[in-house]
Amino acid sequence: MTSLQLSAKEEMVERFLDAAARGNLSQLNIQLSNVPSLVNQTGYSGWTGLMLAARNGHYSVVEALLAHGCDKFSVNSSSQTAFDIAKFWGHKHISDLLSRTDDGCQRVLPGADLTQRENYFSRETLDRLSAKRTDKVWLEAKQSDSDTVYLMFSDLNPMVRSSQEDDNAEGETKLCRFRYEAVKDLLQKPATVLIFLGVEKRKNPSSSSPQTVEGVTEPPAWFAIGSDEDAAELLKRCREKNCAFPKTPHRDLLKLTEEEAGILAQARSVLAWHSRYSFCATCGSGTRPEEGGHKRSCLNPDCRSLKGVHNTCYPRVDPVVIMLVIHPDGNHCLLGRKKMFPAGMFSCLAGFVEPGETMEEAVRRETEEESGVKVGPVQYVSCQPWPMPSSLMIGCLTVAISTDIKVDENEIEEARWFTRQQVIESLLRGTSPAFIVPPRQTIAHQLIRHWIGINANL
Amino acid sequence: MTSLQLSAKEEMVERFLDAAARGNLSQLNIQLSNVPSLVNQTGYSGWTGLMLAARNGHYSVVEALLAHGCDKFSVNSSSQTAFDIAKFWGHKHISDLLSRTDDGCQRVLPGADLTQRENYFSRETLDRLSAKRTDKVWLEAKQSDSDTVYLMFSDLNPMVRSSQEDDNAEGETKLCRFRYEAVKDLLQKPATVLIFLGVEKRKNPSSSSPQTVEGVTEPPAWFAIGSDEDAAELLKRCREKNCAFPKTPHRDLLKLTEEEAGILAQARSVLAWHSRYSFCATCGSGTRPEEGGHKRSCLNPDCRSLKGVHNTCYPRVDPVVIMLVIHPDGNHCLLGRKKMFPAGMFSCLAGFVEPGETMEEAVRRETEEESGVKVGPVQYVSCQPWPMPSSLMIGCLTVAISTDIKVDENEIEEARWFTRQQVIESLLRGTSPAFIVPPRQTIAHQLIRHWIGINANL
Repeated sequence: MTSLQLSAKEEMVERFLDAAARGNLSQLNIQLSNVPSLVNQTGYSGWTGLMLAARNGHYSVVEALLAHGCDKFSVNSSSQTAFDIAKFWGHKHISDLLSRTDDGCQRVLPGADLTQRENYFSRETLDRLSAKRTDKVWLEAKQSDSDTVYLMFSDLNPMVRSSQEDDNAEGETKLCRFRYEAVKDLLQKPATVLIFLGVEKRKNPSSSSPQTVEGVTEPPAWFAIGSDEDAAELLKRCREKNCAFPKTPHRDLLKLTEEEAGILAQARSVLAWHSRYSFCATCGSGTRPEEGGHKRSCLNPDCRSLKGVHNTCYPRVDPVVIMLVIHPDGNHCLLGRKKMFPAGMFSCLAGFVEPGETMEEAVRRETEEESGVKVGPVQYVSCQPWPMPSSLMIGCLTVAISTDIKVDENEIEEARWFTRQQVIESLLRGTSPAFIVPPRQTIAHQLIRHWIGINANL
Repeated sequence: MTSLQLSAKEEMVERFLDAAARGNLSQLNIQLSNVPSLVNQTGYSGWTGLMLAARNGHYSVVEALLAHGCDKFSVNSSSQTAFDIAKFWGHKHISDLLSRTDDGCQRVLPGADLTQRENYFSRETLDRLSAKRTDKVWLEAKQSDSDTVYLMFSDLNPMVRSSQEDDNAEGETKLCRFRYEAVKDLLQKPATVLIFLGVEKRKNPSSSSPQTVEGVTEPPAWFAIGSDEDAAELLKRCREKNCAFPKTPHRDLLKLTEEEAGILAQARSVLAWHSRYSFCATCGSGTRPEEGGHKRSCLNPDCRSLKGVHNTCYPRVDPVVIMLVIHPDGNHCLLGRKKMFPAGMFSCLAGFVEPGETMEEAVRRETEEESGVKVGPVQYVSCQPWPMPSSLMIGCLTVAISTDIKVDENEIEEARWFTRQQVIESLLRGTSPAFIVPPRQTIAHQLIRHWIGINANL
């Protein structure tokens, strides 16, 4: 298209976007003072001047555009903001400048605690792309893509590589990653369950993935394979040393990085659902996986689960409340221990949310049932997916309005009020703490630490 | 037991408790100044002086005991605090005095918003007494107790009585209550599902229930009956006029009182679970109800669902996030409409929490999937059980960090930014509002109202 074919306005927009892309600040300022409405005009694929300046690292142009009141929240046709683009291309000073919205959010939600607390198993490393689950052609193409990453599970546990031979040590554990060629025979087996986990979120160019221009090369897809083959046979597929399927997931799966723990949380929960829900609960017939492993449909064509949408066909997530109960004096908290806990460990009370019950009421009911203590106000703090098998742990603080303890021995072995000082000593791993706190990867640990952080005079 | 058999200390405690119970303030003050430790001593069934004074309405004695530093949070052997006792016996001035713990809670959780927001379907009218679910003897005795209340369900809907013949009107709807004699034949039928809902929470003596001394007469138990008998036949059991099984539960079940809506929420969710989960999802065999209708166990003795605890055996609760997305300018909110909505209605976006996902991440993913808008910080506000069939609606506010809308047409028909003024006009039911808000019984309505309430300059 030559300039002769452009309207006067189109030509003006073209020149404005060009100035932004080239970082020509003086020309851009002249254009904007003549025609202020240029500031939010878009060109090819919905890119604004701000996006182009962010793409090419022109900090002063970004500053000038913001000063001229441009909309930094608009997105291009790939749904990216200028912030996303600056981050992708590694222009950190620009992405920092564009991300200064926290003050704005605080203004929009005054009085709210907007701290985003991240618990273990909570990081979303992948973009789930749930719309692609029904796109069979796309999913099949991704399966045989050489960039695609496969995780291998046996009896719900992932194949991992330990950095240390002694599995009691604190060494890091990594998920073993496979390529299509190494697993394609498994994908053909009827007993294999395959879960589409998502695609890698776009990172900055320093990452190792072979991306060129965004949108041209798609980021790698991830799948989880649940196999019923013998674990020893599966291990032979891995060429690396120190690979294994962990025997004690409650302990071993807490050694992953935050990124891998987030991926594992989805994979293990969905595989656990397939393992327990392979028959139709409504009619007892067999079912088959669909939608990238995120649905199971009944094989009986007359089953009413096939008419309309039914939760029987979708993975189950069990909401659980977990609460730190604070004494009315503000200086003690209530912790309990189950028989199965390691010696000396006490943790927060917890229990499943029942049908027809709010989170707050579940906190009150479970606390009184387990410990005899009545509680009043409840404050939500943060939550944590717990993939053993598929709970959503909803973490709360609550204040007791009675203090006598009467333990339900079917639920817990003992419950006790601990002083703030005892809790601090335990968190600091003092020489002889009154009790042992749960590991830092648990939301119980984080709730206890959060309480200590409130008006702490340390 | 004569005073000769009492030790000197026991005698002193007896006399102290007697003074408290009789309201003899001058004698009590003398006793306390001589022996301050008397203040928390307990007598028969763990009653303290504070409880006795609260029982008999002696306000000045309660005041004096609090001034002497007595523990108002301790409980007697029936697990009641002095506050519970004062409330039960209708001494409102004393229960008010004893309930002044809000300041205390705010001191214990500084900075927290401890407002307890109650949504429709959220009131816990009954004490669920979950420990009694495994007590077959107790449950059977309760079933034939003449005080026991039964609710009748056909195809998951309760038999109700309308105060108006025209079911389009705003008239109130009441659950039809049955006694044992009217339903005992139904209880014998194998297809009947019976759910133990709990017992009435203790109320003050002005209530109609024929209670004498607490602990002697137990409060009435409630059960829900799910019957497969013909609805017309079931209706003949009711002697009252205007009784029916509602045809449009999404509308009709919003007309109950807050108390009955809370009871219905539990009953309908659990019955819906029985209806959809009558076969074992793990092996496909039949199952039978247990534990007062709160569990189903597989009839196949070799099924692995019988070894250990499995969620397949317990009712399902599906966590759903529902969010009001606020524009970064603080003066617009994002609402969407589904095709099935009444004409003109827009509501909050919502979606199921997926396995391995936090509530906050679900808010971000669902908002972007449905509307193309990216959001940053998420703030939990309140939740609501939604018994159609069994969701836990988790209500949040969130702030957008991009503003262009791109609707997923499989999910919603349209999404739009509405101004604060448009929202206010709609809430006030102005003459020609830009849209219609969902009814007040929905958490969507309450979230919208909550946002308007934040820094509203009305």
